[in-house]
Amino acid sequence: MSSAGEDFVARLEGCAADTERLLDRLLAQKPEASEIERPDRLLDAMRYASLGGGKRLRPFLVVESANLFAVAPEQSLMTGAALECIHCYSLVHDDLPAMDNDDLRRGRPTAHKAYDDATAILAADSLLTFAFDILSRQETHPDPEIRVALVRELARAAGIGGMAGGQLLDLAAEGRFDDGKPRKLGERDVVILQSMKTGALLHFACIAGGILGSAKAGEREALSRYGHAIGVAFQIADDLLDVEGDAATLGKATGKDAASGKATLVGILGVEAARARLARCVDEAQAALSVFGNRAKTLSEAAQFVAARRN
Amino acid sequence: MSSAGEDFVARLEGCAADTERLLDRLLAQKPEASEIERPDRLLDAMRYASLGGGKRLRPFLVVESANLFAVAPEQSLMTGAALECIHCYSLVHDDLPAMDNDDLRRGRPTAHKAYDDATAILAADSLLTFAFDILSRQETHPDPEIRVALVRELARAAGIGGMAGGQLLDLAAEGRFDDGKPRKLGERDVVILQSMKTGALLHFACIAGGILGSAKAGEREALSRYGHAIGVAFQIADDLLDVEGDAATLGKATGKDAASGKATLVGILGVEAARARLARCVDEAQAALSVFGNRAKTLSEAAQFVAARRN
Repeated sequence: MSSAGEDFVARLEGCAADTERLLDRLLAQKPEASEIERPDRLLDAMRYASLGGGKRLRPFLVVESANLFAVAPEQSLMTGAALECIHCYSLVHDDLPAMDNDDLRRGRPTAHKAYDDATAILAADSLLTFAFDILSRQETHPDPEIRVALVRELARAAGIGGMAGGQLLDLAAEGRFDDGKPRKLGERDVVILQSMKTGALLHFACIAGGILGSAKAGEREALSRYGHAIGVAFQIADDLLDVEGDAATLGKATGKDAASGKATLVGILGVEAARARLARCVDEAQAALSVFGNRAKTLSEAAQFVAARRN
Repeated sequence: MSSAGEDFVARLEGCAADTERLLDRLLAQKPEASEIERPDRLLDAMRYASLGGGKRLRPFLVVESANLFAVAPEQSLMTGAALECIHCYSLVHDDLPAMDNDDLRRGRPTAHKAYDDATAILAADSLLTFAFDILSRQETHPDPEIRVALVRELARAAGIGGMAGGQLLDLAAEGRFDDGKPRKLGERDVVILQSMKTGALLHFACIAGGILGSAKAGEREALSRYGHAIGVAFQIADDLLDVEGDAATLGKATGKDAASGKATLVGILGVEAARARLARCVDEAQAALSVFGNRAKTLSEAAQFVAARRN
C-alpha cells in the first residue's frame, strides 16, 4: 500500500477545512427562528467537542461519494457536518467516567474534563439532536424525500442497530455488566461489534453520496459494498496501530487492546493474517467502485489511505 | 377549574394505551432492514425507560391537535411516539448522578439504578436517535415534506435552543457551574428557562397536529399560541404542586423547590398571583382555539386538565 498522493492529501485537507468552517457557522451564537436561545456554556461545549480537530474522514467520504453524481459540495458538506456531529457526540459520551473514563482526546482534555460531566452529557445530546436539525434543512438538499432518507439512514446507523448498540456490545465484551473480566469473543462476534460501533457511520458516509445524487440501484449497491469494506479496513488498521504503532505519532498509548484483553481481529487472527485481511478489504472496496470507472479515483485512494494510516 | 369530564378522561387514557402499544411494537426485538442487530440489554433498557408509565400528555396533545384536521390517528400516534422517546430520553439523562442524581422515578428505580450509568446513557442516546427514525418513516405521513418539517421542529424543540438548553440553564441556576449556591433568577429568566426546559416539547406537541394536517397559517399560529400557553400553565401547575401537593398522591417529595432555593414563578410571584397567572394561561389557551370552534372541545378541556392536575 503506497502512501497517499499529494493531490489526495490536498483534497482531504480541503474538505476538513470546509467542514470546520461550516460547523463553525452552524454553531454560531444566533438562535434559529424556532429556537428560544442558545445558552453560552452549552454552545461553547458543543463547539469544543466538534471544532478544531480530526481528519474529518467521514465528511470526506460523504463529499467524495456525492462527487460521483456531481452533487454540489455545499449540499454534501451539510450532510458531512451532520455526520460529524454524531461522531463527535459519541466521542464525548464514550469518554465519560461512566463509560471509558478518558481524560485526553487528541492531546486535549476531554469535554467532561474541560467542562464537567453534566455539561458534557448535554453538549453531546445537543450535537446528536443538531445533526437531525442540519439534515432537515433546505440547504442539505432541495428534495424533502432525499432529506428524509438521509434522516432515516443516519438514525439507523447511529442508534441501537448501529453505533450505540456497538458501544454497548463493546462494554459487555469488557465484562462491564457482570464479573468485570473481558469475554473471549469469536471472529463473528468481533466483526458484528465493530461493524456496528465504527462501521455503521463509515458505511452511512459512503451511501449518503448515492442518496444525495439519486443514484441508481446498482450504484447504491456498489457504494454500500464499498462502505462495508472501508469500515472493516478502518478497524483492522486501527487494531494494527495499537499493536505496531508509535505512541508519539499516534498521540495515545499503544498496546492497550492486548493489555485490556480486548477482542480484536488482530488478536484473533494474528498480525500477518490481519494484514492479509486488510489488503483484501482494500481490494474489495476498490473492486466495488469499478461501476464508476475513472470518476472514483479519489474514493479508490481513500480505501488505501484508510488502510495505510499512521495515526 | 372543574375536574375533567369522563369523556375527556377516557380519551386521554385511550391515547396512553395506544401510545404504549405502538412503542411496544416499535421497540420489538427485530432489527429493521438497515440495522445490524439490537443488543438485548440495550433494548431492555430502552423499553424500561419508555414503557409502562405516564399519562402520555405529549402524545395526547399531538393526536388531539391532529384531530382538528382529521389526520388518521395511526399517523399522529407515530409522531406522538417519537416525541415520547425524546421526553423519556431526557428523564433518563436528567436522573443520572452527574445531573439531578435521582434514584426513583414514578415509584420505580431510575434507569441507571435498574441497569448502570453506561447502559442508561446509551439507552437514552438510542431513544433520542430512535425518535428521528420514527419520524422518517412513511407510516408517520405519506408526504416527505411533512415528515422533514416534523424532524426540523422536533430537533429544535429538543436541542440547544429548547429542552437541552433549558436543562443547562436549570443546572446553572442551581449554581452547579460555580459556587454551588442557587442564583436568584428574575421573572423573565425563569420564564425563558421553563419555556425551554419543559415548554418547548409541549409546544411541539401542539403544533405537530397543524404540520400533520397541513393547517393554514392562521390555524398554525393559533396552535402555536395554544402550545405556549399550555407550556406555561403546565409549569406553574407543577410548581404549585410542589408547594401545595400531597406527597402520597404525587409519588414524590414536595417542598423540594423552596428547600433547594430553586427559582419558580410561584416563588417569585407568590401562590395567589401564580394561581391567577395560571388561570390567565388557561384563558389564553382556550381563546387561541376559537378559530377551530366546537372541534377543539378536547383541546380546550386539555388546558383545564393541565392546570388542575393533581399528580
